[in-house]
Amino acid sequence: MSAPKKVVLAYSGGLDTSIILKWLQTEYGCEVVTFTADLGQGEELEPARAKAEMLGIKPENIYIEDIREEFVRDFVFPMFRANAVYEGLYLLGTSIARPLISKRLVEIAEETGADAIAHGATGKGNDQVRFELSSAALNPDIKCIAPWREWDLSSRTALLDFAEKNQIPIAKDKRGEAPFSVDANLLHTSSEGRVLEDPGEVAPEYVHLRTVNPVDAPNTPEEIEITFEKGDAVAINGLAMSPATVLETLNEYGRKHGIGRLDFVENRFVGMKSRGVYETPGGTILLEAHRGIEQITLDSGAGHLKDSIMPRYAELIYNGFWFSPEREMLQALIDKSQEHVTGTVKLQLYKGSVRTIARWSDHSLYSEAHVTFEDDAGAYDQKDAAGFITLNALRLRLLAARNRRLK
Amino acid sequence: MSAPKKVVLAYSGGLDTSIILKWLQTEYGCEVVTFTADLGQGEELEPARAKAEMLGIKPENIYIEDIREEFVRDFVFPMFRANAVYEGLYLLGTSIARPLISKRLVEIAEETGADAIAHGATGKGNDQVRFELSSAALNPDIKCIAPWREWDLSSRTALLDFAEKNQIPIAKDKRGEAPFSVDANLLHTSSEGRVLEDPGEVAPEYVHLRTVNPVDAPNTPEEIEITFEKGDAVAINGLAMSPATVLETLNEYGRKHGIGRLDFVENRFVGMKSRGVYETPGGTILLEAHRGIEQITLDSGAGHLKDSIMPRYAELIYNGFWFSPEREMLQALIDKSQEHVTGTVKLQLYKGSVRTIARWSDHSLYSEAHVTFEDDAGAYDQKDAAGFITLNALRLRLLAARNRRLK
Amino acid sequence: MSAPKKVVLAYSGGLDTSIILKWLQTEYGCEVVTFTADLGQGEELEPARAKAEMLGIKPENIYIEDIREEFVRDFVFPMFRANAVYEGLYLLGTSIARPLISKRLVEIAEETGADAIAHGATGKGNDQVRFELSSAALNPDIKCIAPWREWDLSSRTALLDFAEKNQIPIAKDKRGEAPFSVDANLLHTSSEGRVLEDPGEVAPEYVHLRTVNPVDAPNTPEEIEITFEKGDAVAINGLAMSPATVLETLNEYGRKHGIGRLDFVENRFVGMKSRGVYETPGGTILLEAHRGIEQITLDSGAGHLKDSIMPRYAELIYNGFWFSPEREMLQALIDKSQEHVTGTVKLQLYKGSVRTIARWSDHSLYSEAHVTFEDDAGAYDQKDAAGFITLNALRLRLLAARNRRLK
Amino acid sequence: MSAPKKVVLAYSGGLDTSIILKWLQTEYGCEVVTFTADLGQGEELEPARAKAEMLGIKPENIYIEDIREEFVRDFVFPMFRANAVYEGLYLLGTSIARPLISKRLVEIAEETGADAIAHGATGKGNDQVRFELSSAALNPDIKCIAPWREWDLSSRTALLDFAEKNQIPIAKDKRGEAPFSVDANLLHTSSEGRVLEDPGEVAPEYVHLRTVNPVDAPNTPEEIEITFEKGDAVAINGLAMSPATVLETLNEYGRKHGIGRLDFVENRFVGMKSRGVYETPGGTILLEAHRGIEQITLDSGAGHLKDSIMPRYAELIYNGFWFSPEREMLQALIDKSQEHVTGTVKLQLYKGSVRTIARWSDHSLYSEAHVTFEDDAGAYDQKDAAGFITLNALRLRLLAARNRRLK
Repeated sequence: MSAPKKVVLAYSGGLDTSIILKWLQTEYGCEVVTFTADLGQGEELEPARAKAEMLGIKPENIYIEDIREEFVRDFVFPMFRANAVYEGLYLLGTSIARPLISKRLVEIAEETGADAIAHGATGKGNDQVRFELSSAALNPDIKCIAPWREWDLSSRTALLDFAEKNQIPIAKDKRGEAPFSVDANLLHTSSEGRVLEDPGEVAPEYVHLRTVNPVDAPNTPEEIEITFEKGDAVAINGLAMSPATVLETLNEYGRKHGIGRLDFVENRFVGMKSRGVYETPGGTILLEAHRGIEQITLDSGAGHLKDSIMPRYAELIYNGFWFSPEREMLQALIDKSQEHVTGTVKLQLYKGSVRTIARWSDHSLYSEAHVTFEDDAGAYDQKDAAGFITLNALRLRLLAARNRRLK
Repeated sequence: MSAPKKVVLAYSGGLDTSIILKWLQTEYGCEVVTFTADLGQGEELEPARAKAEMLGIKPENIYIEDIREEFVRDFVFPMFRANAVYEGLYLLGTSIARPLISKRLVEIAEETGADAIAHGATGKGNDQVRFELSSAALNPDIKCIAPWREWDLSSRTALLDFAEKNQIPIAKDKRGEAPFSVDANLLHTSSEGRVLEDPGEVAPEYVHLRTVNPVDAPNTPEEIEITFEKGDAVAINGLAMSPATVLETLNEYGRKHGIGRLDFVENRFVGMKSRGVYETPGGTILLEAHRGIEQITLDSGAGHLKDSIMPRYAELIYNGFWFSPEREMLQALIDKSQEHVTGTVKLQLYKGSVRTIARWSDHSLYSEAHVTFEDDAGAYDQKDAAGFITLNALRLRLLAARNRRLK
Repeated sequence: MSAPKKVVLAYSGGLDTSIILKWLQTEYGCEVVTFTADLGQGEELEPARAKAEMLGIKPENIYIEDIREEFVRDFVFPMFRANAVYEGLYLLGTSIARPLISKRLVEIAEETGADAIAHGATGKGNDQVRFELSSAALNPDIKCIAPWREWDLSSRTALLDFAEKNQIPIAKDKRGEAPFSVDANLLHTSSEGRVLEDPGEVAPEYVHLRTVNPVDAPNTPEEIEITFEKGDAVAINGLAMSPATVLETLNEYGRKHGIGRLDFVENRFVGMKSRGVYETPGGTILLEAHRGIEQITLDSGAGHLKDSIMPRYAELIYNGFWFSPEREMLQALIDKSQEHVTGTVKLQLYKGSVRTIARWSDHSLYSEAHVTFEDDAGAYDQKDAAGFITLNALRLRLLAARNRRLK
Repeated sequence: MSAPKKVVLAYSGGLDTSIILKWLQTEYGCEVVTFTADLGQGEELEPARAKAEMLGIKPENIYIEDIREEFVRDFVFPMFRANAVYEGLYLLGTSIARPLISKRLVEIAEETGADAIAHGATGKGNDQVRFELSSAALNPDIKCIAPWREWDLSSRTALLDFAEKNQIPIAKDKRGEAPFSVDANLLHTSSEGRVLEDPGEVAPEYVHLRTVNPVDAPNTPEEIEITFEKGDAVAINGLAMSPATVLETLNEYGRKHGIGRLDFVENRFVGMKSRGVYETPGGTILLEAHRGIEQITLDSGAGHLKDSIMPRYAELIYNGFWFSPEREMLQALIDKSQEHVTGTVKLQLYKGSVRTIARWSDHSLYSEAHVTFEDDAGAYDQKDAAGFITLNALRLRLLAARNRRLK
């Protein structure tokens, strides 16, 4: 790979990506463009501008953007239409943000004539894969640089030395090792590493950054109503909201009631197991609610098909294949199923749990006329069940007869 | 179908199956054998014997059995190895009991020379299907009688009239309509019908028979440890227990902490949607724990394959195909995966929720040496990731190049 | 079910459907509308008009239509985009025609104010299911009448007696039993029953109506080229054609070279096995060609996903669920994959077999630069494979280490 | 990776693996053990011994083995139980041989105290992956060396120079480039590269090494009978045979009739497409026959489940995951289905094609009593179909009503 001339860097303004910024300049002598995004991680962005300028980035090369609405509308919501859960439990909060960051990095590279992008993910994790597969799928000619896999700054000391030598300011609390590593966006906060590395040890309470401890949550359950249109949440308690506002609002409900904590050991795409603590307050509520509205608006054939392909869809997102033909094909299937997923769900929030307790819709397929224990006025003829069962049983009966004959 | 001569009836001792018993005698003039099973539904069985005798059943034709251990060992546990959940949420508590009842009915028919079995399920539900498919698969020559689909006792009044005419005692509280219908066994209690028929109305608290309201559960979280061997729970807090005792013990923990309540609208196999309130206290804890132990002992290839076939497996059980070649094939696949699912999970129970908070095992595949943020002493070479990603990206890059070329 | 007042009958003009026509009139005293379609079965339609008139059908109630283009464009081609094959071998020739017939029956019922449709399929086969599920999905209020399941004309003699009594002319060759039963349309001819009922007996040559015996086919192979656009065949040997003309032309090639014969025992949806002889000359060529063009234009992720859902898609069509949400969802997925399935395939036809021997496309993903045994000018770095394999092997290595440790 | 001390090399005796042998000795100064296997590739093995000795291998380090029976019994037959086909057409002839070779290499390494194995596959293909994943799964501590990815012998000239410098004899016909590359074993011969690299060019006849051109095959069809027991072929024309003899015999039939030629563009696991010409004469017959016997002995539920997982199973084998938990889980599922796949199939072989024309079995599930067009003596009540269809249609009817209501 020839040396890059101009690189768009995913830049948080923090110590690590500042070191990367400097390293790119010194290692490759290349021009650096910084991209800092508000994905709802809860940090101010303007300090990143100041820091980038201080590190010699030209003002026109500093991109700072609020992409929360695009994030929720085009990534989070499509994923929730599928009820996507990785390995039974993980709501994919980190996985779903990476493709969007890559997309903007590639777009900015194309706008600014850069020939490469760079990210701050290490060589052990999934994020490097997600960044680089997305980039390859969006523009096959743009290089993707992963400094953590290239440089020899292999210890904390080496990093700090490099920072000092290059006049990168080091916040006091960054001198020592952080007790764990954090990723955050509007959908979730994840914590992993160091104090969490033994999955047999209970995680300390202080790794939870986003939700109150259920023990400290209100002693009274709270009820909310979420309204869906074509599979997406559009209103809370009757109040219409933009996608990002829906998620922010649910996050606040979830935070308050201690909802969405997950202590999890997962299988990384690169072949190892890792343990993380995830907090997905709003997303956990949203998933429950979406299942609730599908219960009355989705036909069983549609629902069972969705359920059967969901694990594969979730795995694709986890592994970084958002921009792949197979994810897009599955999305087409899922979106087709959501045309009538419209209606309202009532949920109860209480000390760490969220439960659907009622749901209604003009699009409901629930037929009280059919299911009633009372007189159904001929809606359903119970005698039909005899034929239904007899023919479903026919092959089992032939099988049993064969097996008995051969005994 | 010629008239049956001797029928084995699934007999609870209650009003409805007593009416069925009498109806079989009068309609077909046949001998009736009663089978009353303790599946953990929490009712005394001996009154059923007295009642059967009173209705003229010969003592040698009265079968009363405690089949709780067989139920948990051969039905519940194999199902939990698969993490089986129907339509995302339902733990299949009713579905999994029916095949065992059918199995005993058929076996007793073979022992007593009966040519038919009979059950008390209506023509609208799934249970008729489960009873009859199981029976067909186990003995193709035995008839299966479903009085609710045959007789003309179509109203409560007609039933009570029939009972009175036939000297069947009617408990006072059975004079009126029950406000909802209940099924129970060691795994769960389900409630449906009448007051629950509008899925837009919140279920009244009194339909919950098996768990305390989370609001009334202890204010302090409780921790328990469950130990697994080859996928099955074998001990709680270090105390070895039989399968049924494991489930009973977990039921008590779940009851106390208000765990396992589900308000659910599901798709019945016969084509309609129905709404039920399920309480699965011990099963909910068991599912969480099983997932927890699989997280460290199951390889990702095995786990993802299991996840991908689970919806089909659950659907088969729900639809009544326990005794089918395809369920047995899937079971072979699942059981093969459980050889090393051995170890211990620590869980926190608190006000309606259960969460895995730690897990450990001699069979663990978790490698701290590989995943650590610290120096990994060469266990993992981050440069390998570059090749891994490059080749995973190759097809996406070729695809992107093709698509750009044609634009 | 109340008696129908006006019924649209799928009418072939043959003896059986003429008897049904008369039976509907006499049994229900209802008005009958006839629908006779040219689906490429190779029979004149005008005699059906004369016969319908003779049986007292009003001219405005006689519908005769050529629906071959709609059949191929909207049913056959979408199905072939999926490479749909039932149980490994059957190209679904009968299955795919039924939904279209139902669609027209229902549309005509709506136009003419009829409250029912009727078909001539028996109670043992799949076609009744296909007609009736389609009809239910298209208009839930229209009844569907299946005279073969209702009447008591249970023997050939009874049918002929009914015909004679009702002045229905009986062709000489219909006096005796046909040696087998036939269904035909532009996609295939199927033969089943009577002389074919023993699957251990070789089918007589005379049941093959549509293809020459491969032994009698030309002694010289013939090459043809089929061009595809977005997954559909649009030209043969460079000559652009309409969908139905493409299939007719391929049928002629297939017929001549003895291509597309299948002797098959299949599982009917109603639970029994049946044996049929199918001839699908053009379809067999088309399937091979479609696979051939996908080989170079479809990405592996897309192709493997398609392959994995194909059996379910084929089963849905076989079972009669063409007009179901899940078939439509799968179709959305499949169609999404076909956007670049454009190019040309060269095939060799010879004595019963068809083989792709070359294929080319502007949309090709095949990269000679990458795959070449010669110098690839840096397109592919073989060292990347080491990292790719190492990480794919990591979990297997951890697994092997665990298993060895426990031995 | 530290330098290996003793390496077991998969050694064919040919020029390329002789160069590798020498390179290992010179590059690493290590002891080399050679393993030469008869997998039915049709070459004498003893010359490999002489050549190994000449290159300085100690006699006790030369392993030469006939592993054809193990190959067919433990690898080919289990795979054929699944009707495994990769990407619709490829019978996995190369893929299935690699795990066995790896298994023996690892076993010999363990016996001889070697710390590494080596193979002659290049860095562009699938075989490197298959060798190395198998080795990692069987013994995580043994290194796997792929000289083609390591050395700098990047041109034919460099290779020949190395051979000359090291006194490796070069056969005359190896001086120039071969026009294509070949892999062969008892199941198939594959040809790829050079003259085959343009998939738009028809392959020359001379690349076909294993089958006569169908045009030159006998002008008269030939019938054979294959008998299966529990899914495996055990006899041909009534003559019991060992697994390898079955396949050899079918190969001879297939060769003679020009059966099993495939011109194919496939997706390699490493991300590129490649074109190959495959000849699988016996395997093609065996697949057709296995499907034929399953048609009457396998229940539809079992068969459809098998069909639905087959693409994944085939992909696992193609990608090199034979020794993985998920392949073993799928094998458990498949093997479970084969318990009654016992019986005989009659096939017709003729000029490139093989067709099942009859099949019979004591284990047959085919019921003439049920399917017959004649009087079925009450085996099947056609009225049952009405209930069966009504309940299958119920959800479609509710769906149609909902959709019409909202229009």
